[in-house]
Amino acid sequence: MNKKISIVDIANALNISKTTVSFILNGRAQEKRISEELVKRVLKLVKEVGYKPNSLAKSLRTGKSNIIGLMVEDISNPFFANIARLIEDRAYEKGYRIIYCSTDNDTEKTQDLLTMFQDRHVDGYIIAPPKNIEDDVAALIKSGLPVVMFDRYLPNVDTDYVVVDNQFSTYNATRHLIEQGYSKIAFITFASEQTQMLDRVEGYKNALKEARLKPYLREIDFNRNEELIIEPLTAYLKRNPDFDAVLFGTDHIGTCGLKVIKHLGLQVPADLAVVSFDDYDVFKLYSPPVTAIAQPIEAIADNVISLLLKKLDANHTQTTQKITLSTTLNTRDSSRSMLKVAITK
Amino acid sequence: MNKKISIVDIANALNISKTTVSFILNGRAQEKRISEELVKRVLKLVKEVGYKPNSLAKSLRTGKSNIIGLMVEDISNPFFANIARLIEDRAYEKGYRIIYCSTDNDTEKTQDLLTMFQDRHVDGYIIAPPKNIEDDVAALIKSGLPVVMFDRYLPNVDTDYVVVDNQFSTYNATRHLIEQGYSKIAFITFASEQTQMLDRVEGYKNALKEARLKPYLREIDFNRNEELIIEPLTAYLKRNPDFDAVLFGTDHIGTCGLKVIKHLGLQVPADLAVVSFDDYDVFKLYSPPVTAIAQPIEAIADNVISLLLKKLDANHTQTTQKITLSTTLNTRDSSRSMLKVAITK
Repeated sequence: MNKKISIVDIANALNISKTTVSFILNGRAQEKRISEELVKRVLKLVKEVGYKPNSLAKSLRTGKSNIIGLMVEDISNPFFANIARLIEDRAYEKGYRIIYCSTDNDTEKTQDLLTMFQDRHVDGYIIAPPKNIEDDVAALIKSGLPVVMFDRYLPNVDTDYVVVDNQFSTYNATRHLIEQGYSKIAFITFASEQTQMLDRVEGYKNALKEARLKPYLREIDFNRNEELIIEPLTAYLKRNPDFDAVLFGTDHIGTCGLKVIKHLGLQVPADLAVVSFDDYDVFKLYSPPVTAIAQPIEAIADNVISLLLKKLDANHTQTTQKITLSTTLNTRDSSRSMLKVAITK
Repeated sequence: MNKKISIVDIANALNISKTTVSFILNGRAQEKRISEELVKRVLKLVKEVGYKPNSLAKSLRTGKSNIIGLMVEDISNPFFANIARLIEDRAYEKGYRIIYCSTDNDTEKTQDLLTMFQDRHVDGYIIAPPKNIEDDVAALIKSGLPVVMFDRYLPNVDTDYVVVDNQFSTYNATRHLIEQGYSKIAFITFASEQTQMLDRVEGYKNALKEARLKPYLREIDFNRNEELIIEPLTAYLKRNPDFDAVLFGTDHIGTCGLKVIKHLGLQVPADLAVVSFDDYDVFKLYSPPVTAIAQPIEAIADNVISLLLKKLDANHTQTTQKITLSTTLNTRDSSRSMLKVAITK
């Protein structure tokens, strides 16, 4: 990537003025009546030459901070860390900087951070909301500040959001286990009243009900101390040696689950088939590799930032958009057919 | 944790005034001539009852933003994500909020982000610095803004920093491999001129030199597209089937390395012993578990935030502190003795 490319170079290459390039890069094309075709050509070249509009914000008189506040649940969780990184990249390409922080799913902390962001004059908010934050978010929106939610949403607040089809994802993963011959399938997840977690439980239950199988749901309280997750998880699996498969509700509980399974010396899938929500290196590199529900994190990041940029464009109509994306079930050896397992045993 | 605890409760419990508690929580104890003993008692109780000084900043007239800017290389890297999270926790306990962003090791982006932080009036900076940022950091320090570096430092700028003993860590890990009977030991890492990476190479080379063994150093260019790391890594291992051990320079390249090893069908450690810098779930859950150099991330976070808070206390003498912490070599089956490997083969 050539770091010496400037706005002038881009202007010269396309035989247009520097000011035009600048207007386009600052989202003022419509206001300045610059043709969509030219906007596309400029953005294409900007991307091709790898131009990064670093010091743009400073030099412009848009009256905006060009800063977006991003609130994730926990930045040390790979799902949120990866999404945050992708959103940061996308935003930076468009001349926005992201500042992020972790809410810890703590309502008071979230309220405090929202205030901090407001004091720092951020232009917009991207939030994976904790519970009981409805009033604060509604107040933000009322004051004209753009808010996009992701991962989960607040049913009683009308905002833009980007989520995945959680219910179908776990329904589909559970169906997969049933089709592979498993029948005593547990669902182990974190206790939560958030929309995405409720939907995951629902999908699991629906698949079992349809197949007239009994559900075994174990909701473990989240704790920052991993030992306090591993302990009840170990006890639950020990108490139920007849389970033939388990579906984990998140990457974090899935990783803890693998530690327990390894510690108990259980063979996967002979003793216990495994499927987890979220797909990361831990699952790909496990022996055998673990079947996982992959969230489309690039698409989530793209959609979140597009929605927010649209909202930031004052000329754009302010209808809310609710986007639900599909996940992919990456089937691997941890859930291979019971029949084949029996033969190779 | 009881969320309803207020400053008044703390004041009442200790039979002191609310104002005194407030002064203490805002680091104005010295200025207000409050005894150290009382400060300790208040902070102890604050910790015990889990009081979080959420809305403190707003209500106080300290003239400070109580915001710290944290710049990591890449938030999607588990080392940085975990450190960021721990620093955020520690800071929050002390009434500070953290806003973070990724520098991507890009000098221009870092300069831009530094400007953004200054515009937002952050009180202090925690930075894992990229190259060529010396002048900018020196200017920050000259203007009286506290800066603490971590992970790596800038040899030509006199700042506080917290790093680990990288050179001894790789020396020690390489010695371990030699003692286990391995002699054709490669070091695969990312090409970098940063202090921590240079030290890691040095430690590896020193151990081999001492044992009169030949070094095999492969430095791969970092790329956000993992395929472009895996490709040269695969080629290198294929070209050198006689290596009996490999030391990976970071968790990221180590994870890529395991993918390559798995793909090539190499048995660990029979075909190739493996040790990696940084210790995460991927290494613990691999079969066999991978020997890893664990950085003391809690201690790094603690020291970073303590140094910065000291700097933020204007009454404190402003000598710089350079802290080097030890790592731990967690030996696991991926590097077990060659002799034992031969017997069980």
